[in-house]
Amino acid sequence: MRVELLCTGDELVTGLITDTNSPWFEARLFELGVKVDRILLVGDVRPDITQALLEVASRADEVLVSGGLGPTMDDFTLECAAAAAGVPLVEDPRVVEWLKERYAQRNIPMNPGALRMARIPQGAEVVRNPVGSAPLVILRLGRARLFFVPGVPREYKALAEGEVLPRIRAALEKDPERVARSFRLLRTVGIPESQLDAAVAPLVPQHPRVVFGFRTHAPENHLKLMATAPSQAEADAALAAAEAASRKLFGAAIFGSDEEEYAQVVARLLTQAKATLATAESCTGGLIAQQLTAVSGASTFFMGGAVSYSEKMKMAWAGVPAAVLERHTAVSRETAVAMAEGVRAACGTTYGLSVTGYAGPTGGTLEDPVGTVYCALAAEGSPTRCERFSIMGDRDRVRLFAATSALELLRHHLLSGPSAS
Amino acid sequence: MRVELLCTGDELVTGLITDTNSPWFEARLFELGVKVDRILLVGDVRPDITQALLEVASRADEVLVSGGLGPTMDDFTLECAAAAAGVPLVEDPRVVEWLKERYAQRNIPMNPGALRMARIPQGAEVVRNPVGSAPLVILRLGRARLFFVPGVPREYKALAEGEVLPRIRAALEKDPERVARSFRLLRTVGIPESQLDAAVAPLVPQHPRVVFGFRTHAPENHLKLMATAPSQAEADAALAAAEAASRKLFGAAIFGSDEEEYAQVVARLLTQAKATLATAESCTGGLIAQQLTAVSGASTFFMGGAVSYSEKMKMAWAGVPAAVLERHTAVSRETAVAMAEGVRAACGTTYGLSVTGYAGPTGGTLEDPVGTVYCALAAEGSPTRCERFSIMGDRDRVRLFAATSALELLRHHLLSGPSAS
Repeated sequence: MRVELLCTGDELVTGLITDTNSPWFEARLFELGVKVDRILLVGDVRPDITQALLEVASRADEVLVSGGLGPTMDDFTLECAAAAAGVPLVEDPRVVEWLKERYAQRNIPMNPGALRMARIPQGAEVVRNPVGSAPLVILRLGRARLFFVPGVPREYKALAEGEVLPRIRAALEKDPERVARSFRLLRTVGIPESQLDAAVAPLVPQHPRVVFGFRTHAPENHLKLMATAPSQAEADAALAAAEAASRKLFGAAIFGSDEEEYAQVVARLLTQAKATLATAESCTGGLIAQQLTAVSGASTFFMGGAVSYSEKMKMAWAGVPAAVLERHTAVSRETAVAMAEGVRAACGTTYGLSVTGYAGPTGGTLEDPVGTVYCALAAEGSPTRCERFSIMGDRDRVRLFAATSALELLRHHLLSGPSAS
Repeated sequence: MRVELLCTGDELVTGLITDTNSPWFEARLFELGVKVDRILLVGDVRPDITQALLEVASRADEVLVSGGLGPTMDDFTLECAAAAAGVPLVEDPRVVEWLKERYAQRNIPMNPGALRMARIPQGAEVVRNPVGSAPLVILRLGRARLFFVPGVPREYKALAEGEVLPRIRAALEKDPERVARSFRLLRTVGIPESQLDAAVAPLVPQHPRVVFGFRTHAPENHLKLMATAPSQAEADAALAAAEAASRKLFGAAIFGSDEEEYAQVVARLLTQAKATLATAESCTGGLIAQQLTAVSGASTFFMGGAVSYSEKMKMAWAGVPAAVLERHTAVSRETAVAMAEGVRAACGTTYGLSVTGYAGPTGGTLEDPVGTVYCALAAEGSPTRCERFSIMGDRDRVRLFAATSALELLRHHLLSGPSAS
């Protein structure tokens, strides 16, 4: 089965919007074992859209066409579709009804322009949009079935997920050339991409049905495993074997898989250990607190975070003695340790986590240049641990990797079996 | 001039990577007055890439082709280019030299596979890559000039900016059909997109040379103005008139233009006022502190941020009296005011800014359901101001809009002329 995506809109060809709909839909199709053949983006130019529709219709079996279905003057995708198919646009009474109902529900008078959305190429099928006005339109053209959906991500996703994918899945089940695919994403931190690549190389010949791939998603690196086989059971088995071998290789550097987010994993480990946390951040400026509190229910384990950006607040909130700052400066092993212990004492938590460093672009010393970061973890009943990191890159990158380096101290401690509180 | 972009790579058609190179390059071209006609993405399939190259070469004048130039087995874009052009691949001695130098500089032995990068379609021009190994390759095919660059964003941008854009600019200057364009992005907060649209409508007929567009970039909404005219002076004048009319309409809701980031604007206003700030955040969990400290030099105005996620830390760090929490709960006008005043006193700053609220998905009360947020601004020498907001959406959205709502209290106060510290 050949699948293509066609996206229309001036905003997509002038750099104003990044097309995030297509990667989302590609990933959903890939889970069904379908690799999209082409994605084509064109501006709001009638002859270009008509020409593109004729091209995809001559090549593909299933095509998702997005954008240009709204009520305004620059929405003319269906006009182009009618021109490509050589049929007129006709007002569909069902769509008129749906529009009337929708406007009535929202208590808005229906603008006559809205009726543009009811003008459908003759012979096309229409399906109601559960979250918007413009319906899904399905038109057969050339060898292809064309699905027209709005470009607004919420409506695109609702219709693509609820209406388009099930139809493609049904067609797939009848496809004699079908192959089964199975996919896993293994998320790592702390391993550079080149090292990941080299470490995986010996596995490749042992797993001929699996393609090993990599993607960088700073500060994480992801290992992607794609198994292809004649049947789903064989694909799943090949994937399971490759995943087991990869997990053996990387151990705890793999923090999660597929959709699992890093902060969620740390939150789960803390919750499982019935532990609580407080943070004292300097150069990361609240990034750790913000990441952890993005997890719903964070108040069960996160008690407080001191963004102690000045020396005064390092003393007041994180209990760093003036003498330590005086003797060792704000960016030092001693200060990081005092911050972690001080914030733990202030908040009365199981753990205290701290970061201090030079995020740049200015600052730093000869011994501790920009990119130097000290992270410390204070824990109930064990000595405070402190590590020094040298992080390359700009201010954003140093802050991002500094936050993760600190959280890694905590995650590894929790994995190695912390003392119960 | 007709410009197209062709991007190759399996990761682009399976949802693993979002193509962010193209929007960047489109925007750079748009500044030159060039609207890209098509962007085409294809997977790592030899016949598909060859076919796509023949298609773009038959239609476009200038084409940027990216991806598949590296040293591994799945890098075969130049092979496809040679096939499309009907010429052999030949090893280019200059590229071999560049590769040797690069590996020597980095003290890495050169893998024989690296020489793949020196195999160039016969007759093509090569330009050294300043930040990577694979060179820029320029090949004439059909009516088009094809520029081949690596897909790695750093190398893509360095070569596109440094080598491709100047060549396109030179070609443009000879283009008889050239029109001049001028572009401005006006960034607003606090105005819903639909309101922006309706407010701008009366301006449209008064500025026939300007296209008004919108883009949502939560929590901001952007108004984009694009002027087209026969000469650059006329385009610039038309843009200036439309910009002045828009600024009159929206006043301080426009916080910046083009590349100006919100946090930078707040930082600049604080610095100009020689003022300092402390924050006390509950539901936003450090988001405000993190946004402000992302600005380089934040330590001159940002003294500290208390992420007081528990009642205990609201008392300890933000000086909220136990009686206030007891009587009014942690999410209340009284607590927000106490947090802003308390954190200002603790840090000794010009301003204290606070947020407390229900980010969801659980929590909230009948009077203050999920999405209710109280923000307060305490300032030297004026009464503390507090506002209540009702924010729709999921946890991430509530946190994001809550942070901006708080910062908006501060920004408007600074714009209206704060008392000097």
